[in-house]
Amino acid sequence: MPADFTPYRKLLKRVREISYLGSSAAALTWDVETYMPPKGLAFRAEQLAYLGSEAHRMFTSKKVGQLIAECEQHGFPPESDEAANVREWRRKYDRATKVPARLVEKLERTRTLAREAWKSAREQSKFRLFKPHLKKILDLNRQMADCWGYKESPYDALMEGYETGATASELRALFATLRPAIVAVLGPARERSTAIPANLLQGHYPVAAQQAFNQKVASAIGFDFQAGRVDTTTHPFCETVGPGDCRLTTRYDEQNFAQSLYGVLHEAGHGMYEQGLLAEHYGTPLGSAASLGIHESQSRLWENHVGRSPAFWEYWHPVACEHFPDLKKFSPAQVSAAVNRVSPSFIRVEADQVTYDLHIILRFEIESKLVEGALDVTDVPACWNEEFEKSFGLKVARDADGCLQDIHWSIGLMGYFPTYTLGNLNAAQLMRRAAQENPALDGELARGQYASLLKWLREKIHSHGSRHTPAELMKQATGEPTQSSYHLDYLKNKFVAK
Amino acid sequence: MPADFTPYRKLLKRVREISYLGSSAAALTWDVETYMPPKGLAFRAEQLAYLGSEAHRMFTSKKVGQLIAECEQHGFPPESDEAANVREWRRKYDRATKVPARLVEKLERTRTLAREAWKSAREQSKFRLFKPHLKKILDLNRQMADCWGYKESPYDALMEGYETGATASELRALFATLRPAIVAVLGPARERSTAIPANLLQGHYPVAAQQAFNQKVASAIGFDFQAGRVDTTTHPFCETVGPGDCRLTTRYDEQNFAQSLYGVLHEAGHGMYEQGLLAEHYGTPLGSAASLGIHESQSRLWENHVGRSPAFWEYWHPVACEHFPDLKKFSPAQVSAAVNRVSPSFIRVEADQVTYDLHIILRFEIESKLVEGALDVTDVPACWNEEFEKSFGLKVARDADGCLQDIHWSIGLMGYFPTYTLGNLNAAQLMRRAAQENPALDGELARGQYASLLKWLREKIHSHGSRHTPAELMKQATGEPTQSSYHLDYLKNKFVAK
Repeated sequence: MPADFTPYRKLLKRVREISYLGSSAAALTWDVETYMPPKGLAFRAEQLAYLGSEAHRMFTSKKVGQLIAECEQHGFPPESDEAANVREWRRKYDRATKVPARLVEKLERTRTLAREAWKSAREQSKFRLFKPHLKKILDLNRQMADCWGYKESPYDALMEGYETGATASELRALFATLRPAIVAVLGPARERSTAIPANLLQGHYPVAAQQAFNQKVASAIGFDFQAGRVDTTTHPFCETVGPGDCRLTTRYDEQNFAQSLYGVLHEAGHGMYEQGLLAEHYGTPLGSAASLGIHESQSRLWENHVGRSPAFWEYWHPVACEHFPDLKKFSPAQVSAAVNRVSPSFIRVEADQVTYDLHIILRFEIESKLVEGALDVTDVPACWNEEFEKSFGLKVARDADGCLQDIHWSIGLMGYFPTYTLGNLNAAQLMRRAAQENPALDGELARGQYASLLKWLREKIHSHGSRHTPAELMKQATGEPTQSSYHLDYLKNKFVAK
Repeated sequence: MPADFTPYRKLLKRVREISYLGSSAAALTWDVETYMPPKGLAFRAEQLAYLGSEAHRMFTSKKVGQLIAECEQHGFPPESDEAANVREWRRKYDRATKVPARLVEKLERTRTLAREAWKSAREQSKFRLFKPHLKKILDLNRQMADCWGYKESPYDALMEGYETGATASELRALFATLRPAIVAVLGPARERSTAIPANLLQGHYPVAAQQAFNQKVASAIGFDFQAGRVDTTTHPFCETVGPGDCRLTTRYDEQNFAQSLYGVLHEAGHGMYEQGLLAEHYGTPLGSAASLGIHESQSRLWENHVGRSPAFWEYWHPVACEHFPDLKKFSPAQVSAAVNRVSPSFIRVEADQVTYDLHIILRFEIESKLVEGALDVTDVPACWNEEFEKSFGLKVARDADGCLQDIHWSIGLMGYFPTYTLGNLNAAQLMRRAAQENPALDGELARGQYASLLKWLREKIHSHGSRHTPAELMKQATGEPTQSSYHLDYLKNKFVAK
C-alpha cells in the first residue's frame, strides 16, 4: 500500500493518468509499425505529438514540482518504495524542467530535418549533406547538457538520460582495457571462423515455420504470450503497451531462419524484463526499467549467452528440424558454429559478438570527443575511418559504411551508444553470478530448462524496477558494479579456448 | 477555411484535441478485439474509462458552453459550415450536460452488472435473472429522457441520441404499414425458398482464399485499403480510428464463405461512408456521420442491394470460382438464390432480408411501450412471444431465443433498434433514386462497375457529414424523407414477383 501522505498519493494519481496517455502513445506507435494503413499517418503524427506534449505538460506542472518538494520535506524511510519513487521523480522532473521549452522545440524541429538529411546523405554516401545538421544536433545537445549541469563532462549529462550515474571517465577506463583485449580475441576467433562458410545454413525456411519455432523457443525461455505477442516489422523492437501487454517484433528471411530467431530471442529478453516489472508499480519509477544498459543486458543474455550457446543447439536442434527439414543435414555443433561466425564488417547491426563492442567503443570515442569539444564535426569521417582501421583492420571506403550508418545522431541521440556495450558487460557478469549461485544451471540450460535462470533475473533485476541506480543494482545482484573482465572471459572462452 | 471568429476557432481547437483522445480510444478498442494479449485487459479497461471521461470533461466544461453561446450570439449564415457545427455542438452539449453526473455514473454501474446478469440469464434461458436489471436500466433511461425533455414521448428523447428528429409516433405510422406488408411477402418468399436446401453451398473454403476474395470484392466496390484494413473478430464491426484509417472486421466459417463475404460487404458499406466523410472536418459534426439510420443504409445498400443481387453473382461467380473450386458446381443463379434463402427463425442476427424488419418492429413495439409506461417489465416475455407468433408463425419456447437474445438492453441501449430498419428503408430509397438519376446503373453493376454509385453516395450522403438532420439529408438526396414503400417494392420485386 502506498504511504498515506496526501502529496504522495496525488503524485501517484497524476503519474497514473500520465501512464494512460503514455500507454496510448505506445499502442499507437506499435500500430504505426505493424497494422496502420498508410493514409492514417498524417493524423497519427499529430495525435502522437499531442499525447506526448500533454504527458509532458502534466508531469512538468508547477503543482507536480510542489508535490515532489512536499514529499522530500516529509521524508520517507530510505529503503521505502516511496523514497525510491520520490528520488526518481525529482531526477526526472529536474531533467524535464531545466531545459527551456524553446530549446526542446528547437531540437524537435532540428531532428525532423536532420533525419531526412541523414537518409539522403546515407543513400548518397555524402557526409557533407549531413554535416550541417550534425553540427546543430551537437550544439543543441551541448546546450542541453549545460542546462542539466554536470561535474566532469557534458557527455555525463547526456548519458544521464539513458544510464543514471554513468560517466565518460568511467567508460573511458572500462573501454581502455576492453578494446585491446577484444582486438586480441578477434585474430584467433576470425581464424577459427574461416572454416565456416558464410552462407552455410542457407535453405528454405517458410515464414510460418519460423513463427511456430520462434514461438516455441520464446515460450520455453519464459516470454508470456498471454501478456505479449510477436508481430512483423522491418526494424525489430520491443514495446510495452501496458502492464500485461508487451509486444515484440521481428523480421523474416526465408533463406535463413537465424535472423528472425535471434531477433525474437533478443526482443524477448527485453520483453521478459518488462513482464517481470511489478504491475502494481506500472507508470512509476518502481515499475520502470533501471536503465538502457540494464535493459540491454537482458536482451543480450537471452540472445547470446543462452541462444548462441552450443547447449542451446544440442537441445533445440531436433525441434528445429521438425520445423525446418533443411536443418537435418547439419549437426547441432555445426548450427551453433554457423550462428557464431566471427567476421569483421563495416556495419554495427550485422556485427558478430566479438566485434560488436569495437563498433560501440568507436562511436563512444567520437561522440564524447564531439560533446567535449575535442573533435570538430568536420573531422568525424577521418577520425572514424582511422580508428576503424585500427580496430578492425579494414579501410572504410564509403561514409555510408562508416559514420553515416546509424540513425542515432540524426534523431538527436548522443550518449546512447555506450548502453549497448554496458548491456554486453552486464549480461556476462550476471550470467557468471547466476552460474556461481546455481551450480546446476549449465545442466538445466542443456536440458532446455530456463525457469531458474529467469527466476534469478526476476529476483535480482526485474522486480526492482528503478529502485536502485544501475550501478547499485549490478552491485546487489553480482557483488560489484559493471566490469569488463566477465565479458572478456566469456569471449575468450567461447571464441579462443580449446 | 474556418470563420475568423475567435470563439469558433477555440471550439475547433478543443474538439480537435478531444478527437486525439477519441481516436486513441478507438484504436485501443479495436486492439482489444483484434490483437491485445488477454492479460492486457484490466489496465486497458481503466485506460479507456480515463480517456472517455477526459474527453467528456473537455467537451462539457463551462468554457465550451460559453464558447457555443458566443457563436450563437454572433450568428453564422444558415447554410455555412459554422452554423451546422454550432447547431450540432449545442445539441450534443445540452444532451451531455443536462443529465446529472450521478445519473451517468449510476447507469455505468448498472450496465456493468446488467450485462453480466444478461449473459447468465441468456445461458440459462431465465428471464427472471435479468428482470431486476432490465427494470433498473429502464428506470434510468426514463430518468434520462426526463432530463433531456421531449414533446410527445420519452422514447423520442432516447432515440435522439442515435437518430436526430426521429419520433415514436412517426415510426409507429411507418411500421403500421410495413409490418403487414412484410408478413404478406413472407408467405410466398418462404414458399419459393423451400426449393433451396439450407446448406446448399456447404463446402471447403480456406480462410486465406476467403480473405483474398473478400479483399478483391471490397476493393472493387470502393473500400480504400490504403485507408483501411480488415481483421478477424468474433463479432464483426467497423471502427474509424482516424481520418484515413478505417478498420473493418469479419469472421470466417471454412464451410461457408458467405458469412465472411457478407460481413465484409456490410462493414465495408459502413467503412466507405466513413472514408467519404471529409478529412478536413474530422472530429467536428461536419466530419461525422449523420445518424445510425443513415449509417446502416450504407451497410445494407452494399451488402444487400449490391451484394445479394443476381447481377452481383453473374459478375463475381467466375472470380469466386478461382478462389473457391467448390463453387464451380453451382450456377451464378444458384449461388444468388442460396444467399437469399428466406426462412423465419428466432434469432435476429441470423435473419434473412424479408423477416429482418419484423424482428426490429417487435423490439420497437416492446421497448417503446416500456419507456412510455404502457408495458411492465414483468410482461416482456409474454408480450414478445405473442407478437412474435403473430409475425413469424413460430412459438418461442425459450427466452434465450426470444427476449433475451440481444445485448442492447443489457448495455443500456433503448431507442437504438429502429435505426436498423431505418437503414433498410433508406437503403432501398437511395438505390431507387440512384437508379432513376442514372439509367445506366443496372448495366454498370452487372459489369462489376461500382464507381458511379459510390460517387453518387459520396455526393448525396457521405460528404455532408452531420450538416443536415437525417430526414433533411434523405429529402435532399431522394426528394422525400424516409418512406417504407421503396423497401417494400424491393422486397416484393425480389422475393415474390415472377
